[in-house]
Amino acid sequence: MKFNIALLAGDGIGPEVIDQAVKVSDAVAKKFGHEITWKPALTGAAAIDAVGEPYPDSTHEVCVAADAVLFGAIGHPKYDNDPSAPVRPEQGLLKMRKKLGLFANVRPTFTFPSLIDKSPLKRERIEGTDLVFLRELTGGIYFGEKGRRDGGETAFDNCVYTRAEVQRLAKKGFELAMTRSKKLCCVDKANVLETSRLWRETVQAMEKEYPEVTVSYEFVDAVAMRLVQWPNSYDVLITENLFGDILTDEASVISGSMGLMPSASVGTENQLFEPIHGSYPQATGLNIANPLATVLSAAMMFEMAFNLPEEGAAIREVVNKALAEGIVTEDLSEGGKAYGTKEVGDWLAANI
Amino acid sequence: MKFNIALLAGDGIGPEVIDQAVKVSDAVAKKFGHEITWKPALTGAAAIDAVGEPYPDSTHEVCVAADAVLFGAIGHPKYDNDPSAPVRPEQGLLKMRKKLGLFANVRPTFTFPSLIDKSPLKRERIEGTDLVFLRELTGGIYFGEKGRRDGGETAFDNCVYTRAEVQRLAKKGFELAMTRSKKLCCVDKANVLETSRLWRETVQAMEKEYPEVTVSYEFVDAVAMRLVQWPNSYDVLITENLFGDILTDEASVISGSMGLMPSASVGTENQLFEPIHGSYPQATGLNIANPLATVLSAAMMFEMAFNLPEEGAAIREVVNKALAEGIVTEDLSEGGKAYGTKEVGDWLAANI
Ligand SMILES: CC(C)[C@H](C(=O)O)[C@@H](O)C(=O)O
Ligand SMILES: CC(C)[C@H](C(=O)O)[C@@H](O)C(=O)O
Repeated sequence: MKFNIALLAGDGIGPEVIDQAVKVSDAVAKKFGHEITWKPALTGAAAIDAVGEPYPDSTHEVCVAADAVLFGAIGHPKYDNDPSAPVRPEQGLLKMRKKLGLFANVRPTFTFPSLIDKSPLKRERIEGTDLVFLRELTGGIYFGEKGRRDGGETAFDNCVYTRAEVQRLAKKGFELAMTRSKKLCCVDKANVLETSRLWRETVQAMEKEYPEVTVSYEFVDAVAMRLVQWPNSYDVLITENLFGDILTDEASVISGSMGLMPSASVGTENQLFEPIHGSYPQATGLNIANPLATVLSAAMMFEMAFNLPEEGAAIREVVNKALAEGIVTEDLSEGGKAYGTKEVGDWLAANI
Repeated sequence: MKFNIALLAGDGIGPEVIDQAVKVSDAVAKKFGHEITWKPALTGAAAIDAVGEPYPDSTHEVCVAADAVLFGAIGHPKYDNDPSAPVRPEQGLLKMRKKLGLFANVRPTFTFPSLIDKSPLKRERIEGTDLVFLRELTGGIYFGEKGRRDGGETAFDNCVYTRAEVQRLAKKGFELAMTRSKKLCCVDKANVLETSRLWRETVQAMEKEYPEVTVSYEFVDAVAMRLVQWPNSYDVLITENLFGDILTDEASVISGSMGLMPSASVGTENQLFEPIHGSYPQATGLNIANPLATVLSAAMMFEMAFNLPEEGAAIREVVNKALAEGIVTEDLSEGGKAYGTKEVGDWLAANI
């Protein structure tokens, strides 16, 4: 097969980790007889510097024309974390999600047997954890009307959901549950919020279409607790944008391998794959960043965007092999030899 | 001194644990020469059963007239967790908070050395944890306009904050920080939400009034992570209603002693003290519920409502003694002798 993949390296360590994912993807393509054409485009601080805008139209066009988007990381300190900055990278992120229609953020949290002792949680709490969040990504309070009144003294943010928005996300949840252990948890705050009541009643009405799936409904505060207590009691979880933001980040650290966690953001037309970690500006150019989350995001890309599970499995296998053989960057080397970002990528590509 | 204390036992195990807190409070009062008059009133399922309303006016009057409110727990299964039930106990909770003006929910999370191995987190992560959340409790998305349009197909919830609401909560945060390690963390989502930007700019403007306090600003998703990674890196945290709901529950389980965690909800006129655990209907009447969280809530009451730190310290001391000597209910007895709810209360009262 032939693919065009939009390559959004971003800023910080983005370009370095993306390079390794490209190498590994090319090696997989070669092995299985595919041909990838990479289409680089600017985002984040790199795009702000070049054209004053974190998600320029030119980049959007590259993404729309591509079969998938592989994304590095954005968030340079000169623009990041400062809500009063005139242009902020996260505005680009939100715009990108909205314009590409990436309504479902797929975030697996799992453990690597060899890394289990890195978890802040005790072994018996974390062992066997293998859960997936589907976070709604283009609705809710992120995108509702927001502003000030009373001369700036009052601020408001509207959270809005339509039944159709809930249905398309929930459908993905049910379908994913059918391919796994057929357990689905709908996370809401239906005891307080009207949007949550819409979520709950919509999911309840869909249950009869998937009689094999066991659905539970839990309040977001209860899930925030149970994720720490018994993360391995969850399988597929669906939730709205803001709850998903908080809970997926919480979930990402329980496995102790946050630097290894991949993600996908998918819609009807477009699909984007990215590591969940940030752009670690301090590490830029030092050849120390861990490329594995980006490489595993490429695995998700083969599986989800191209429906090529064997290619995905080949990547996962070589990553496991690298971990087992200690071909790792300094964040995981624990006194042993630390390999460079590039060297880990080379090793993976050579061992596919 | 003489106090009138409104006694809202609630339902489930509420009445049993409240009885022990009453006993211990009376013992403390006797020892220090105070006189407490208890004013019982109905809430929750008990009130719905009696008068069809979870927070009746008659109860409100008792609370307003009292010097403090001691609250057990509510949430009977016949009304709880069912968003479509016509009357729900949590409506009573929200009404009570609003009518009593309890705008600040104070939730400490700390460890008991003897219970540290109950934490799901590894010892080195949790050791030394002693943090306090101040959660805004009468504003935000809980109380903004909510409803449906488009014939029920679209749901909305408005999140609204005024600068004055942020100021009064933040003021309590700065003041609390001044009595502790002078570190304050403002938790928001200022990269996305306008209400969060109002929170952040308001707190920033207050910094100069408290030059000794070091203020940090963190996004809610980052805090959800760090609470699991290094809970002992936090001291005082302030945040809005919904973020506080999620994060305080997350924080409550990291110490492994959720059943021991007290809380206070305070306003300008009224103060209410309650355990953070629920009403465990399954345990009702079995004399097995752990009364310590309610007893420690009474300690907070002496300290915060009556400004009697010695009395509070006396309660904390006897609780520590009970834990050390194994005078505990079955949730903590670990194969040793399990005492009944009442027996623990009797022991505490006798040993004050
Ligand atoms: C940067 C921010 C806008 C973003 C979000 O909240 O969605 C990030 O936290 C994420 O989860 O991708
Ligand atoms: C029952 C519910 C409305 C309540 C809340 O969300 O405030 C509870 O979770 C709490 O934290 O006291």
